Amino acid sequence: MKKITVTVMTVMLSTAMSMAQQSAITNAPGKEYPKVNPDRSVTFRVDAPSAKSVSVDLGGRQALQKNSEGVWELTTKPIDPGFHYYSLTIDGARTTDPGSQVFFGSGHESSGIEIPEECMGYYLERDVPHGEVRIQKYESKLTGETRECYIYLPAGYNEGNRKYPVLYLLHGAGEDQTGWTKQGFMNNIMDNLIDEGSAVPMIVVMDHGVATIPGIQSASMFDFTAYEKVVIEELIPFIDGNFRTLTDRNHRAIAGLSLGGFQSFTIAMNNRSLFAWLGGFSGSGKGPGTTADLYDDSMNSDFNLIFISTGTKESAQMYATVKNFHDILVNAGVKHIFFQSTGTGHEWLTWRRSLYRLAPMLFKTPMPQSR
Amino acid sequence: MKKITVTVMTVMLSTAMSMAQQSAITNAPGKEYPKVNPDRSVTFRVDAPSAKSVSVDLGGRQALQKNSEGVWELTTKPIDPGFHYYSLTIDGARTTDPGSQVFFGSGHESSGIEIPEECMGYYLERDVPHGEVRIQKYESKLTGETRECYIYLPAGYNEGNRKYPVLYLLHGAGEDQTGWTKQGFMNNIMDNLIDEGSAVPMIVVMDHGVATIPGIQSASMFDFTAYEKVVIEELIPFIDGNFRTLTDRNHRAIAGLSLGGFQSFTIAMNNRSLFAWLGGFSGSGKGPGTTADLYDDSMNSDFNLIFISTGTKESAQMYATVKNFHDILVNAGVKHIFFQSTGTGHEWLTWRRSLYRLAPMLFKTPMPQSR
Repeated sequence: MKKITVTVMTVMLSTAMSMAQQSAITNAPGKEYPKVNPDRSVTFRVDAPSAKSVSVDLGGRQALQKNSEGVWELTTKPIDPGFHYYSLTIDGARTTDPGSQVFFGSGHESSGIEIPEECMGYYLERDVPHGEVRIQKYESKLTGETRECYIYLPAGYNEGNRKYPVLYLLHGAGEDQTGWTKQGFMNNIMDNLIDEGSAVPMIVVMDHGVATIPGIQSASMFDFTAYEKVVIEELIPFIDGNFRTLTDRNHRAIAGLSLGGFQSFTIAMNNRSLFAWLGGFSGSGKGPGTTADLYDDSMNSDFNLIFISTGTKESAQMYATVKNFHDILVNAGVKHIFFQSTGTGHEWLTWRRSLYRLAPMLFKTPMPQSR
Repeated sequence: MKKITVTVMTVMLSTAMSMAQQSAITNAPGKEYPKVNPDRSVTFRVDAPSAKSVSVDLGGRQALQKNSEGVWELTTKPIDPGFHYYSLTIDGARTTDPGSQVFFGSGHESSGIEIPEECMGYYLERDVPHGEVRIQKYESKLTGETRECYIYLPAGYNEGNRKYPVLYLLHGAGEDQTGWTKQGFMNNIMDNLIDEGSAVPMIVVMDHGVATIPGIQSASMFDFTAYEKVVIEELIPFIDGNFRTLTDRNHRAIAGLSLGGFQSFTIAMNNRSLFAWLGGFSGSGKGPGTTADLYDDSMNSDFNLIFISTGTKESAQMYATVKNFHDILVNAGVKHIFFQSTGTGHEWLTWRRSLYRLAPMLFKTPMPQSR
């Protein structure tokens, strides 16, 4: 089995983070700009002396101006905490910002900026035992390709013979297997929760949630037939065959964000003998092609935990998909947790918080809930 | 049974809270100042035209200056998020700020200011079903006095005949039974967690953790003999006799902050047949008068959950008391959760976060932990 250990972004804990102008933690190594200001505005600087125009697209395009040093500069309005993709446009050409690391989102490589939240530091690196994130290749006969997934192995995995439960953690539309580690800091979140004693040590598998199988036509982006086959027939057997896993349903969970949340619900509802723990962040059940009557109180006995979440600043339509599904579950008498991330939109802060809330509940004795 | 319903502070959810200068949520009704600025500095204004000097003591005394309108004014440095007590000194006389509500802390009535954290809004009032907080009197033969406690009854308590588990939640030295509601927003935290499905609906009893019994000498502030007798012989029987409670140990928890954390550990360790859930925030076990060998792995079977916490910005000595106890538990093989609240000191933000983390774990099937 080929193993590569990937070096993940290091984010040192700094509670003073937003008290002075700071280079963003998402900057490329050694790059000073963009900087995050105390009021959460961002100052961009772009060195393009011969350019006629430079603008930044960060949820809306804004023009930079040449400053006294001849460097293009812009300070934005305050920006919501969290991770935001952005791009530069120089003389009409869309490009990334050399000051920023590159992240895969919206289907392409993009610049990104992290506006830190003054909140618990739950996703920042602390001085605790660290798990490792491996880039893992596996062969897929179904798709005829070599596929790649990221695998988080908790601290201590390499010592002893302990077997671990597994969380399959899916990304959103236009992202890939790198997202949960690079944008989501999932390894810091898991390291911190496990060290604290709140979360059971677990393996987390982050696959690329896109698959094409010859002969299987996808009816829509919500038709997960092909990817479901890869997960059930190839990914799970590969993981259980090559890592020290607990292989019963009570030790296997699936959760995802946005489209990955819809994938998680579809795959788990179709394979209840394989998954006992289920989560959807900013996307869950009742996608196009499913009907409300699919969700009945048989879910109470079939699942140990059902967790759904959304950000309170998501678009009305995004918010409604999760809120409406919450209402469906309430009306059907299905016990579940509905976590609302205050003040965050359809972005990684909502999903980091959701993982932070879900992970401590996984793989523990089924818990009676208040609904 | 005498019942009074107390109106608790209303804190409307505002995610924009720190993006513009805002009157503090702890101000007296209708008062504009003090105001919290976007960088978390505070602007104080005091109208004292004939005063010769005005200063504010907010973790260190700073002088106000008369502004162009003849009003005394000061803008501080940025202040850590959370709740902070403060006082004014006018011409040498220590007083409270008419702009602020009055809070009981440090053994006296004091002004207070809340610097909001941009974090989940878990302690802010949301549009969810609200429990009520009652001011409850009860007679104490042991102390010969009428005592007062605050009791949180979850939404729905007044309908139906459901019985509820009980959390006894203790305040710190120099505070009283009002603290968890006025400074701690415990009612908002519980309302939100219960509505979300994360916490089991429960009754929370907040007593005044000070008692004097004729003939019982207190050896030190860590000698809780008298208060323990009141809790065991009078408070618990009163609560179970007058509210719809589940009265077995698996449905009774005790937790507290600072000195109340030491009280919780002392009382629970001495009365294991009464409490199965135990928590200490910024104060827990191994206080003066106890020895490390008191804590052994019998605690694993005697308690369903042991939760301790501290703030990473507490004084070295405060931090050490909890960290050292954590090490004692680890060395003794006692399973527990050790939550560290990043960037907060020995104040209410640490304790609100601790309640937010502990409450969802209470009164559920005992959970295997990672230690």
